[in-house]
Amino acid sequence: MKFATFSYQGSDHVGVVDASAGRVRPVSGVADMVDLIARYDALKSSLGSGADIALGDVKLLAPIPVPKRNVICVGKNYLDHAREFAGSGFEAGAVRGAEIDEYPAVFSKGPNAVIGPTDDVDMHSEITSSVDYEVELTIVIGKSGRNIAKADAYNHVFGYTIANDVTARDRQKRHKQWFLGKTLDTFCPMGPWIATGDELDPENLAVKAWVNGELRQNANTRDLIFDIPTLVSTISQGMTLVPGDLIATGTPAGVGIGFNPPKFLKSGDVVTMEISGIGRIENRFV
Amino acid sequence: MKFATFSYQGSDHVGVVDASAGRVRPVSGVADMVDLIARYDALKSSLGSGADIALGDVKLLAPIPVPKRNVICVGKNYLDHAREFAGSGFEAGAVRGAEIDEYPAVFSKGPNAVIGPTDDVDMHSEITSSVDYEVELTIVIGKSGRNIAKADAYNHVFGYTIANDVTARDRQKRHKQWFLGKTLDTFCPMGPWIATGDELDPENLAVKAWVNGELRQNANTRDLIFDIPTLVSTISQGMTLVPGDLIATGTPAGVGIGFNPPKFLKSGDVVTMEISGIGRIENRFV
Repeated sequence: MKFATFSYQGSDHVGVVDASAGRVRPVSGVADMVDLIARYDALKSSLGSGADIALGDVKLLAPIPVPKRNVICVGKNYLDHAREFAGSGFEAGAVRGAEIDEYPAVFSKGPNAVIGPTDDVDMHSEITSSVDYEVELTIVIGKSGRNIAKADAYNHVFGYTIANDVTARDRQKRHKQWFLGKTLDTFCPMGPWIATGDELDPENLAVKAWVNGELRQNANTRDLIFDIPTLVSTISQGMTLVPGDLIATGTPAGVGIGFNPPKFLKSGDVVTMEISGIGRIENRFV
Repeated sequence: MKFATFSYQGSDHVGVVDASAGRVRPVSGVADMVDLIARYDALKSSLGSGADIALGDVKLLAPIPVPKRNVICVGKNYLDHAREFAGSGFEAGAVRGAEIDEYPAVFSKGPNAVIGPTDDVDMHSEITSSVDYEVELTIVIGKSGRNIAKADAYNHVFGYTIANDVTARDRQKRHKQWFLGKTLDTFCPMGPWIATGDELDPENLAVKAWVNGELRQNANTRDLIFDIPTLVSTISQGMTLVPGDLIATGTPAGVGIGFNPPKFLKSGDVVTMEISGIGRIENRFV
């Protein structure tokens, strides 16, 4: 199933999406998406009925509009991107020949960064001139767990959504730790909804991004260096993952700094991202 | 004034602390500490009366038991510590002679890490054998703001508390980005309360830490490389700070990896931290 958070006639709802029919059916009796995820086993048999609304009549929000803690993000998780990043001059301490890390680099983006799948991204042009896009398959945690074994990882996943891990490259480089370059207000468009894990094969999804209609990123999740079980297991070592936690799994090659000279975003640019089996987000940079 | 969050007779309260008298007076009509901070200007004239309770009869919690986003943390912000870290072998990509960064390194710790001023710290011995302590003056944001000028920074500060930025050094090094080594469950003892900014001079506070009674860290906040106005201004560039945000300002020299061989914490160790004008926290590592 696909679950969206949306605004309709002045209030926010969670709903079941029928993407091909272009309809969404509100789910009653849940406070928000995290509440639905936490009680999904008990609720799922009762989600089947009720009036629906045309998707065109609602405003889609981020699936989890205000995450309860920072979005967990993985860096350098596709080989071609690890190479383009190391070669770009924007990776602090990059070492030639050591582009692939032995362990995943994990950082975070604040809830202040999260916006909806069609919202505008503020380029913060008063403080940065190197705004870049990164399409990322994003895991939505369904069941709590700590020290999760790889073999058990998928049992803790509720589903998947799309994130644009927007980055101010100058700040990412300057501060070495990536948090400040990643967490600017509006720098994490997400959506358009969550596709549950039984809907797709997360290890074989086409991941694409366009800038003003020009295809820039075009990859497949089968090429993740650290796969989903490895990420869930590694991140949960000593840290209890809880329903609604978000893990952005890293971006493939084709970001702006992968070009020479870099193709940073300009005001008015429109970035479209699509992951097969999930959907599409499209945000204007202003 | 000093404000604590505490548990008493089965429910949680926010209260005004009289540290010398050893008493705390519950504040009525506020949901929690963040609510008090957000409405402080309107509330502060009415905080003066009511029955109080002996501090010995309550259990102090972290001042903000569940922060609404990750604790923002600054690395390498005292010269002697920057040198001991670079020389320890535990800083990924350390460069001799370049121990001091031109810009502050900023990362985060999840709310899952936050515990109270006397709670036990779980050493997670199944996944790490290099647990270390770091005493840090921690800023509590009072007023929202973005792109805050240095000259205006103190107007956005509500007060100060103490944090122990507990770190698994092996994970900090391996993953390069520090998040995973810093955000293990229970790895952020905080408290014992918040001292408001008018109570102290944050640029001249003694910062000390003991392990089993042995003084290990002994410094003064006047030696911060990036001072409080610089941190608030830098972090708020493009990111809206909101009431209750927490910024741990970095630790001075004397942590476990500053010794040769390193003095990592062992099960049963007790770490005590004190900052003048605020108070003291003491946590057993188990």
